[in-house]
Amino acid sequence: MTSSQENKQASSIGIFDSGLGGLTVLKDLATRFPHESFTYLGDIARLPYGNKSPETIKRYGLQILRFLKDANVKALIIACNSASTVFLGQNDFENIPLLNVIEPGSAAALRVSNGEPIAVLGTSATINSHAYEKTLKELNNNQKVIEKACPLFVSLVEEGIVGDPISFLIGERYLKDIRDQKIKTVILGCTHYPILRDDLKQILGDDVKLIESGEVLGERLHELFASGAISRAEKGQRFIRVCTTDITDHFEHLARNLMKPISIGPLERVIL
Amino acid sequence: MTSSQENKQASSIGIFDSGLGGLTVLKDLATRFPHESFTYLGDIARLPYGNKSPETIKRYGLQILRFLKDANVKALIIACNSASTVFLGQNDFENIPLLNVIEPGSAAALRVSNGEPIAVLGTSATINSHAYEKTLKELNNNQKVIEKACPLFVSLVEEGIVGDPISFLIGERYLKDIRDQKIKTVILGCTHYPILRDDLKQILGDDVKLIESGEVLGERLHELFASGAISRAEKGQRFIRVCTTDITDHFEHLARNLMKPISIGPLERVIL
Repeated sequence: MTSSQENKQASSIGIFDSGLGGLTVLKDLATRFPHESFTYLGDIARLPYGNKSPETIKRYGLQILRFLKDANVKALIIACNSASTVFLGQNDFENIPLLNVIEPGSAAALRVSNGEPIAVLGTSATINSHAYEKTLKELNNNQKVIEKACPLFVSLVEEGIVGDPISFLIGERYLKDIRDQKIKTVILGCTHYPILRDDLKQILGDDVKLIESGEVLGERLHELFASGAISRAEKGQRFIRVCTTDITDHFEHLARNLMKPISIGPLERVIL
Repeated sequence: MTSSQENKQASSIGIFDSGLGGLTVLKDLATRFPHESFTYLGDIARLPYGNKSPETIKRYGLQILRFLKDANVKALIIACNSASTVFLGQNDFENIPLLNVIEPGSAAALRVSNGEPIAVLGTSATINSHAYEKTLKELNNNQKVIEKACPLFVSLVEEGIVGDPISFLIGERYLKDIRDQKIKTVILGCTHYPILRDDLKQILGDDVKLIESGEVLGERLHELFASGAISRAEKGQRFIRVCTTDITDHFEHLARNLMKPISIGPLERVIL
């Protein structure tokens, strides 16, 4: 590694997800912060996290935070909801600021819900943890919350079955109660779910407010810059590094599609 | 560990799968060989294998064969089709006989197909490897083979969505060509697929011959006993040990259901 590369890596923002869904977050943040560099780690070899036990998710998560710290990041973002649930309330990792998606997502939902009930969609791990329900009730004691695990949604997105009779039938099954109760604020508690946005709107109505992780993380990152907790990157040194624990043609293709129009270099394989 | 336990473990048959689908194989073998002991390892923490690269599957597979060898097994069975593809043609692991599901499954299909085309259903990793097609053509140069990846089938089984409008719609999508070509010999190239047997018969017709891994592995194991390559267990010392790399209530429940009427003790967690 040249000293110029070392210098660049010292200034990046680390993002971790179980797979490639977190690239939707990377894309949002890379667009909002055009001079910042990013180091992304997708744990493709061991995805999905959504059906693992909290102990296993924590063990894998700590390995990944350690890897990103060793890559000299200045801030850490857990883009994976299932992983966020096991690091809830932890604001730093060995003195590096740590953001998760649960708290900002909950705050954003409360801002638009006007006291009406809020629905949370997520993996089995996220829903079984009740992390969103607990966080929402901490922020507003009387908030009514409906949680619904949608475990097949991740597989649908990974197989590219979106806007399809199959995704619509599965969506109808999962979302029936939420539609019948006319709930109009829905937290997408998994980074894969924004890709099913059109299916969800078709089922829940065009007036549904879907809360997505990428948008709200941008606000939290802005606060970290504004408070001086982390410093801004210099112009002209930007890089975007996408690392994964496995590489297949399918995932390489999916990664490039998710990041468009931002182009990325070859995926870097990391053995954890 | 007591010396009695050591003695028992020295005589067991090791079975490995990416998850719990291989319990269908364990159940078949434990029924067919009522005095034999078994040590099962399901790599639940890192499932599914079906969308991983061959390099990653091989790395994980070697860790698991090593674990089972250290548990003093007398024979090794790779019940996972995706893992079998990367160990194809390897008949032992460090002097312990090694069986996979590809070769016996192919031989069984050829016996019943009467020269007609054979279809193979499997995960993306299994189908992309063309392991079944290569093996079938080695056994019969003129055999016509149609391969079809059915990546959502594993998720359906894991979520218990079987005999359902959703599994039927997904099955219709994957199996349309096979039905239109009136193919009547179909290899179920994934241990999860026998659980979808009724859906598959509804789509492909009651006269379809579905080739399942458990049945054909029993014959190969019988050959190992008959040739003296491995010795039979003594009566009255049987144990069935089910180890997994993660444990959740969902998987514990699924494991007990798949093994019925054979009862198993608590799942043992193994960190790999």
